[in-house]
Amino acid sequence: MFSFKNDYSELAHPKVTERLLKHSHQQNDGYGEDMHSQEVTKIIHTYTSSPSAAVHLVSGGTQANIIGLSSMLKPYESVIACTSGHISTHESGAIEATGHKINEVPNANGKITVEQIDRVVKEHNMEHMVLPRAVFISQATEFGSIYSKKELTDISNFCKQNNLYLYLDGARIGHALMSNDSDLTLEDIGSLTDMFYIGGTKNGALFGEAIVIPNTELQNNFRFIMKQRGGLLAKTHGIALQFLALFEDDLYFQLAQYANTSASKLADGIKAQGYDFFSQSSTNQIFPIFPKTVIQELEKKFDFYLWENIDERTAAIRLVTSWATPESAVEEFLSVLKNL
Amino acid sequence: MFSFKNDYSELAHPKVTERLLKHSHQQNDGYGEDMHSQEVTKIIHTYTSSPSAAVHLVSGGTQANIIGLSSMLKPYESVIACTSGHISTHESGAIEATGHKINEVPNANGKITVEQIDRVVKEHNMEHMVLPRAVFISQATEFGSIYSKKELTDISNFCKQNNLYLYLDGARIGHALMSNDSDLTLEDIGSLTDMFYIGGTKNGALFGEAIVIPNTELQNNFRFIMKQRGGLLAKTHGIALQFLALFEDDLYFQLAQYANTSASKLADGIKAQGYDFFSQSSTNQIFPIFPKTVIQELEKKFDFYLWENIDERTAAIRLVTSWATPESAVEEFLSVLKNL
Amino acid sequence: MFSFKNDYSELAHPKVTERLLKHSHQQNDGYGEDMHSQEVTKIIHTYTSSPSAAVHLVSGGTQANIIGLSSMLKPYESVIACTSGHISTHESGAIEATGHKINEVPNANGKITVEQIDRVVKEHNMEHMVLPRAVFISQATEFGSIYSKKELTDISNFCKQNNLYLYLDGARIGHALMSNDSDLTLEDIGSLTDMFYIGGTKNGALFGEAIVIPNTELQNNFRFIMKQRGGLLAKTHGIALQFLALFEDDLYFQLAQYANTSASKLADGIKAQGYDFFSQSSTNQIFPIFPKTVIQELEKKFDFYLWENIDERTAAIRLVTSWATPESAVEEFLSVLKNL
Amino acid sequence: MFSFKNDYSELAHPKVTERLLKHSHQQNDGYGEDMHSQEVTKIIHTYTSSPSAAVHLVSGGTQANIIGLSSMLKPYESVIACTSGHISTHESGAIEATGHKINEVPNANGKITVEQIDRVVKEHNMEHMVLPRAVFISQATEFGSIYSKKELTDISNFCKQNNLYLYLDGARIGHALMSNDSDLTLEDIGSLTDMFYIGGTKNGALFGEAIVIPNTELQNNFRFIMKQRGGLLAKTHGIALQFLALFEDDLYFQLAQYANTSASKLADGIKAQGYDFFSQSSTNQIFPIFPKTVIQELEKKFDFYLWENIDERTAAIRLVTSWATPESAVEEFLSVLKNL
Repeated sequence: MFSFKNDYSELAHPKVTERLLKHSHQQNDGYGEDMHSQEVTKIIHTYTSSPSAAVHLVSGGTQANIIGLSSMLKPYESVIACTSGHISTHESGAIEATGHKINEVPNANGKITVEQIDRVVKEHNMEHMVLPRAVFISQATEFGSIYSKKELTDISNFCKQNNLYLYLDGARIGHALMSNDSDLTLEDIGSLTDMFYIGGTKNGALFGEAIVIPNTELQNNFRFIMKQRGGLLAKTHGIALQFLALFEDDLYFQLAQYANTSASKLADGIKAQGYDFFSQSSTNQIFPIFPKTVIQELEKKFDFYLWENIDERTAAIRLVTSWATPESAVEEFLSVLKNL
Repeated sequence: MFSFKNDYSELAHPKVTERLLKHSHQQNDGYGEDMHSQEVTKIIHTYTSSPSAAVHLVSGGTQANIIGLSSMLKPYESVIACTSGHISTHESGAIEATGHKINEVPNANGKITVEQIDRVVKEHNMEHMVLPRAVFISQATEFGSIYSKKELTDISNFCKQNNLYLYLDGARIGHALMSNDSDLTLEDIGSLTDMFYIGGTKNGALFGEAIVIPNTELQNNFRFIMKQRGGLLAKTHGIALQFLALFEDDLYFQLAQYANTSASKLADGIKAQGYDFFSQSSTNQIFPIFPKTVIQELEKKFDFYLWENIDERTAAIRLVTSWATPESAVEEFLSVLKNL
Repeated sequence: MFSFKNDYSELAHPKVTERLLKHSHQQNDGYGEDMHSQEVTKIIHTYTSSPSAAVHLVSGGTQANIIGLSSMLKPYESVIACTSGHISTHESGAIEATGHKINEVPNANGKITVEQIDRVVKEHNMEHMVLPRAVFISQATEFGSIYSKKELTDISNFCKQNNLYLYLDGARIGHALMSNDSDLTLEDIGSLTDMFYIGGTKNGALFGEAIVIPNTELQNNFRFIMKQRGGLLAKTHGIALQFLALFEDDLYFQLAQYANTSASKLADGIKAQGYDFFSQSSTNQIFPIFPKTVIQELEKKFDFYLWENIDERTAAIRLVTSWATPESAVEEFLSVLKNL
Repeated sequence: MFSFKNDYSELAHPKVTERLLKHSHQQNDGYGEDMHSQEVTKIIHTYTSSPSAAVHLVSGGTQANIIGLSSMLKPYESVIACTSGHISTHESGAIEATGHKINEVPNANGKITVEQIDRVVKEHNMEHMVLPRAVFISQATEFGSIYSKKELTDISNFCKQNNLYLYLDGARIGHALMSNDSDLTLEDIGSLTDMFYIGGTKNGALFGEAIVIPNTELQNNFRFIMKQRGGLLAKTHGIALQFLALFEDDLYFQLAQYANTSASKLADGIKAQGYDFFSQSSTNQIFPIFPKTVIQELEKKFDFYLWENIDERTAAIRLVTSWATPESAVEEFLSVLKNL
């Protein structure tokens, strides 16, 4: 049974693993002090045009968020995020476990607006409340949508003017950048955010995320926090090698493009059959709304997550494509749907 | 220049990476709910004769310690460890960052004794002090030494009688078990401890440690803590596959045996040349004491860590061997040393 | 200028301070192990008909909430509260600083409903989310309203059926109990909640809150947490003596009654002049809505907090009365208002 | 039975409580924004000749230590203290509960030396270890001893040169300053430390400690941390009034002097009877060593703490005097001892 449950069902792109295999016996210094990690840093400097950015490799996205956000906040400082933000609902209270409140605001298609941030900042005007100091956004969002250059610039400007750091969760940053709707580049993201990460796990790596810190103020002693939070891996060069494979000939971007295209085909086919969607996705996650009877039939042939009840009769499901989704799976899904 | 700095310089045993490559396109459920993780659990049940043990896979040792220890302690409870314990000095305050004090006692050849634990327990007799609730030991220790069956049994009995959990850091558990001096089995460890981990990173895996929880009391809701601490990997099946490769035909134990043998050769050769040692090692880490002039010469040809100053004239260095240490490197070291 | 800003502007009822003065030279054991603390416990046992309840005295309400809630939650467990709850917005992230998420839901007149709690519980159904384990309510609420016996019983029953602890912040519990609208007794609260506190600071004490723990499961080692959080005072008998003075001849309840009556007079007078209110208060906090021009005039003669903007032209203010509010202040306020 | 257990057995000096009584009905702003708190600040500015110092009032010493130390440390930073330091052993892990490690070193008569601090700093030279950032000392120490001007200046200079903050726990700072052996003034302490507190609880106040922050770098947003840790009291003016009473005509220093004199008499009398001492005390805590048979007899007439077993036959006890110790109690103790 084919699974559309997520973009990390398949282990890794063969080029990634082959690169690891090739380096089985090479000796490297531990904990990120190896030449491959330095090479990754250099490439990211080029991609982002931020030659002074710090780059650190960790094994997962929740870990990146824990380390990144807790590194920038004093004990009484908080981070603003929308309710659909990964840190708000799907990290088991990881940010709060580091002692910090998340100021949650309702999401609009998975996104947060300057107006919402402004309201939180204005409401928090005394020392009996937390002091909002960072804004968390995801690109692509948890709903598959993306921020436009205008939107990201507005948020970035507001943050700069209001003494807020802007942190961008890039678990699916490749898919966002390669979206047909995207007008943003990695260079833009490097200049508009204070910290972000380039996700490997959901785009062909075995595991690994590259935290990028354009804001030099936030770079100092970052590795202490990585170590303290269990995020400094002995064999960091094993993550570096994966990113080198992914960055070679822009494989990383090709894989994301492929996943997006598969999702588009799926979405177009579903739309063509008259169904509606829960969110406006531009990337590799789509959220069609089906009658529950239809969902029951689809579940017999495919794996996917039930996302949200719409009403008594209908619900939204989540379908995720990846670098590894065969065209045939997309076609079969559409054909099964048609024949229900 | 050959490095004896650690047992994680080389990436992974080829059989491990090949196993990953073979499964590039297989779809698996995320977050450890896959069949390979289940298979690892079954094998560990057999190895430990603990069919009710829970098994969880994480990416690194510090992470295993953070998750394991914080899962067993109430806010005011502490863990007893010796000063050379990894959590005491080399994890950047990771345990304290979860809110818990470590009651540190001096180490004796890297080990802690029942008498020391007893003293700590007796001294902590009021609610103005922390309440010791766990004992942390490493097997092999950070000094290469190992606990005997008698020693581990005594500590285990004391813990049971005094309401203390026994946690064993098994980053180098393979090397300990395969030591010529060892009279312990994984089955013993399964019955004598409440929680321990089987280290992959330092014995041929790319990365990954298997946390084993024989004490059923400690199993409940463990995955919430893993997720909250950033230790629940999307592609946990990528760690499981590595352990399956390592457990096939007992490769894991062969690799450890090989590393031990290399260390023995190195130690014997050094001893034969009239040098002394800082600790009594039975495993793959040895700590010879050399005149500083000798060390300066050795540093021109080999990489290793300076461990501790002994006096003005001499110092101990650490030499670590692994599954990947070529015989020629050992021979060359001894020959260079001889010719100084 | 008379201040209606809060019910802790005046230091303490003279009977409280006189009791302290009388005991200046009496020797007592430290940290709550004195006879006066025992006496307080006995009286609360009688008031609540809960002879097995534990009682602990601390110096402030935020401290009571920190200690009480963190004592009942495992690291991954959360507490449900409404947005107007004191812990949600006015304790500078104190609960999050102990590592726990607050699941915030919108308030209805300062209260939370069973339906809201039920929704949070249902939504949190997986280990990638926190596990809700407690419900926080305030009686009286931050809006001056109170839970009825029916409402509290429904919440209590839901909590018992869903493995949730019920914690009640009783900073103004005296005012709630003495409200004309109240059908609850301390005995009810003792049987319907797992932990609550009887507030001294806002009802005539110099400072001091009495944490009451009817649920015997939650009593064990509570003093360790008090000490660890800085809440175990050397001279706890100084808080005990205050409560003894307040409980003598039910002074505590008379003071609350007096404050309520003052607030009622104020509210009735304001209503009679044709003004509306932001919340339905039954206790000593009222929130009249005035034109901003009126507020500007009132501010010349009285101190009070601006509570919330209603629209461009009007806003709600908060007026708080206490045991120390002279009748003349109430009358003067109404007269000034009338003459604007 | 008279108690020499501690210096907080008696509630408060009558002048302190009378001051509170006198202000029963005066309205003040909450949370330390009142004129009495400002007045305390001014007086401390004069005492310390540090007109830019910030002053904050909290209810207890453990709370002062929690708030003060956690306000100056980043997550991976630690504080150095000796094993007898209050934070090391008698605060139930309060500092670790805020996430920070204490680097403990052996004490010498309750004190820490520059050499010890230097060794800790030198040993912590990598990001796999915590980063020592503060030094904690007590004046007087937990053993009744005091730092000389030379000792404190040396530590202060070392701290400045090594990027360490110096924090001084002044629970018994009055007794230290009034010791016959003291060559330090409050002005010295204000210029040599970054933060310290002036203890009220153990020298005549009902409760209350005044945190003083000479280092302006550490002053920013301090009240957020106070609030978050439950240390910002609504009726802070109730602590301020106590300090005003204690500072009037230098009552604070007279009380400390009196306590010291009582302890001296006791110590001299015990010495005259041929007994030895566990520590060299200059203040109001003394630690005579008696045969256990003697201790058993003394326990029939007096309350005190058994401090430490010296050998099978003898033990040290702790005797504490205070502003409230009657001369007759001292005399009776000496007479009982003589007649054993």
